[in-house]
Amino acid sequence: MHILLTNDDGINAEGLYELYRRLHKKFKVTVCAPEAEQSAIGHAITLNKPLRVKEIYKSKKFYGYAVDGTPADCVKIAIRCILKEKPQMVISGINHGPNLGSDVMYSGTVSAATEGTILGIPSLAFSLATYENHDFRFAAEFACLLAAKIEKTGLPDGVLLNVNVPSVAADRVRGVMITKQGRSFYKESFVKRVDPRGRKYYWLTGKVKWLRKPKDSDIKAVEEHYISVTPLQFDLTDYRYVDILKNMKIGLR
Amino acid sequence: MHILLTNDDGINAEGLYELYRRLHKKFKVTVCAPEAEQSAIGHAITLNKPLRVKEIYKSKKFYGYAVDGTPADCVKIAIRCILKEKPQMVISGINHGPNLGSDVMYSGTVSAATEGTILGIPSLAFSLATYENHDFRFAAEFACLLAAKIEKTGLPDGVLLNVNVPSVAADRVRGVMITKQGRSFYKESFVKRVDPRGRKYYWLTGKVKWLRKPKDSDIKAVEEHYISVTPLQFDLTDYRYVDILKNMKIGLR
Repeated sequence: MHILLTNDDGINAEGLYELYRRLHKKFKVTVCAPEAEQSAIGHAITLNKPLRVKEIYKSKKFYGYAVDGTPADCVKIAIRCILKEKPQMVISGINHGPNLGSDVMYSGTVSAATEGTILGIPSLAFSLATYENHDFRFAAEFACLLAAKIEKTGLPDGVLLNVNVPSVAADRVRGVMITKQGRSFYKESFVKRVDPRGRKYYWLTGKVKWLRKPKDSDIKAVEEHYISVTPLQFDLTDYRYVDILKNMKIGLR
Repeated sequence: MHILLTNDDGINAEGLYELYRRLHKKFKVTVCAPEAEQSAIGHAITLNKPLRVKEIYKSKKFYGYAVDGTPADCVKIAIRCILKEKPQMVISGINHGPNLGSDVMYSGTVSAATEGTILGIPSLAFSLATYENHDFRFAAEFACLLAAKIEKTGLPDGVLLNVNVPSVAADRVRGVMITKQGRSFYKESFVKRVDPRGRKYYWLTGKVKWLRKPKDSDIKAVEEHYISVTPLQFDLTDYRYVDILKNMKIGLR
């Protein structure tokens, strides 16, 4: 199987490299990732500037392609311009930090996998649910196992998997839980400062405050040391509300 | 009612101004919009640089705040830093161009309304479904009408409305249709060029090719000259696939 590997932490990220090393033992892997960190970039694509692609070497060996764009850009340009054949899978990660609950909306890691899905390729997103521990080995091992499983079973059209691995020692991981997206809420604020030229600026800061984490949610699963696997799709319609809206009889005047 | 008004085409966009002028007659309106065009920015937020806010005047009268960030940034910073009181509604638009089908994933216009919803405020996104005609008056009129309606009824927690207005003369609009998100597909490619210094660059280009536009979809409604109103939510879980995944019994090895 030929895997297109990308991320949103950038081509120099450790999580990407660890995943590359593990997948590479079993699969053909092409790395195409953002040149710079693209966290919280959402599903952005670059329309109003051109993109450049650089070949990146590690210890004198070819490692992959760096693009001065977003994770979704990387997937698009790899498939349309760089790869001679369509890859059989898109994998994004391993992100350094969780992508749980409403964070999924802001996640570049997930958006790369979404782009793969939009282009008709089975796609997986992986995150290590911590901002501290840098040991990606267990998460990479599991990513490789899940990729092999999905290679056999496939994924339905329009579905991607969002995987979050808890940051605990491998022998303390309790198993895999199929979850639904919880809802997270940030108690956020802006730090207001004045620059050396006397002009005000604002810097976003904030603490996560979980809002809804039912038993079968991604947030709860990771808290309880399970690997969370959430199937995602990108029809955002709120079907529960369609009929209520119809009954409101909104007219032209 | 106090409305926070934003967009993704930027503070100088005609669609924003037309909507401001119309809403302003009936409501208190605060404009806070990106300084520069932010199309296809998805739900990006700015974490790794500070944001600056400028006061913008039109014909010597205060018009609103320009932020050097994304539409979601504008909503966050307006609510957290600029406004003294929480607005009762967030309105995004009028976008110059449709936000239909899978485009919703890439849309800065929709993401601003999503951010409002995440922050607990009823939010509406408006788009004029054309890249040509610049006459936003009918769309602005309808936006004002819908805002007044939603002011009375409210919206359920976690639901926003994505509205696309067809670009035809007002008397040819056939009515309002409550729709679901269709699925659109781009036949896209990259133009490959060489810059004056001999380096290659790539520029994304593409034509929309509709993939799925069932009778009750946003895409079909606008094609048939209806105003499309789609209720959106941001739980991306594919509930149909949860049980299938559970039956796959994915383990740790």
